[in-house]
Amino acid sequence: MEFAEYFPVWNKLTAVQQNRISGGVLSRTVRKGALIHNAGMDCTGLLLVRSGRLRAYILSEEGREITIYRLFERDLCLFSASCVMRSIQFDITVEAETDTDLWIIPADIYKKIMEESAPVANYTNEIMASRFSEVMWLIEQIMWKSLDKRVAAFLLEEASIEGTRQLKITHETVANHLGTHREVITRMLRYFQGENMVKLKRGGIEILDERKLEALNGG
Amino acid sequence: MEFAEYFPVWNKLTAVQQNRISGGVLSRTVRKGALIHNAGMDCTGLLLVRSGRLRAYILSEEGREITIYRLFERDLCLFSASCVMRSIQFDITVEAETDTDLWIIPADIYKKIMEESAPVANYTNEIMASRFSEVMWLIEQIMWKSLDKRVAAFLLEEASIEGTRQLKITHETVANHLGTHREVITRMLRYFQGENMVKLKRGGIEILDERKLEALNGG
Repeated sequence: MEFAEYFPVWNKLTAVQQNRISGGVLSRTVRKGALIHNAGMDCTGLLLVRSGRLRAYILSEEGREITIYRLFERDLCLFSASCVMRSIQFDITVEAETDTDLWIIPADIYKKIMEESAPVANYTNEIMASRFSEVMWLIEQIMWKSLDKRVAAFLLEEASIEGTRQLKITHETVANHLGTHREVITRMLRYFQGENMVKLKRGGIEILDERKLEALNGG
Repeated sequence: MEFAEYFPVWNKLTAVQQNRISGGVLSRTVRKGALIHNAGMDCTGLLLVRSGRLRAYILSEEGREITIYRLFERDLCLFSASCVMRSIQFDITVEAETDTDLWIIPADIYKKIMEESAPVANYTNEIMASRFSEVMWLIEQIMWKSLDKRVAAFLLEEASIEGTRQLKITHETVANHLGTHREVITRMLRYFQGENMVKLKRGGIEILDERKLEALNGG
């Protein structure tokens, strides 16, 4: 079963536990933009990315968004299965950023195995610690870093993920990642364009001067 | 041993594990204001509060602070023992907000037991999930809530923790909790005073109108 290869503690499971997971896990293909989990859904299950990319974000009452973390190949999303731990007292939304293949591990199956298996519980701990580190990084960004640096960092990250300087991304999308308004991003990008760091195009942003963006981000 | 009473999974440990903890745990009394852990310290150990109150915060390069969470009686601090998990990739500072009695569980002892015991690993998971929920709440506050509401909420929280409307707290302290500058807090508190919500005193803030602060916070 291919799943086993993507689940690092598979060999530490008993045969019974392996069978329980094999029998319960669902394989799904979702299209770019698909909503996989939101606050209204009960407990979707743990999401394990086989290929593609997911984005986890939170929403304000007014509908503003901010990206909390992104999930790439082999990443596991715990918080779409908040019912596995009673202390998870927040809601996230998860959507596909690209066409994505994933496995869904039902929450009740995972919860039962985690309760009896120290390796699975410790694996879960490491995943949570890793997300925690990303969220602490985000707080530092929001608190201590000005928006021009955050926009520069985001454009560089996008270019690195997509492997191109031609970003097919709207100002709205940038705003939703960074938790701000579209108008604010448009103003910032126009300033970047004035400084010859980017070129704004129909339906996208071209990075012209990576080093200048890096200097801004690091400065 | 009194420690056992404060450690919820004590009865799920083997006799050998219980002895290892009993033999390693340190009992400490620290004074108000004492620094218990910071980024420069290697791995202080897990802190279990017997009585008193701790504050965990992060620092910017310029020395600005923001409170991440507070720890009360029976709370356990994991992140002062970041060496127990390799995925903990951030640093916090922990100081005593009041005179505090605590136990320090050495990180290596805890780590070894967590690796072999599913109940301890799951207990650790619940603690991390609970801190994660506090941090997500903090992000929502920072992102979507204006500062007047956050100051009102903080004053009400202080009054509730201390059991008095006479808060012995400086503007600097409020600023350090909320991640802003003292001048900004002073301006806000003067506005609150103008609205008859608080009275500013030498070395403190008196809450005059709890309901008005609650309305501001909730509104």
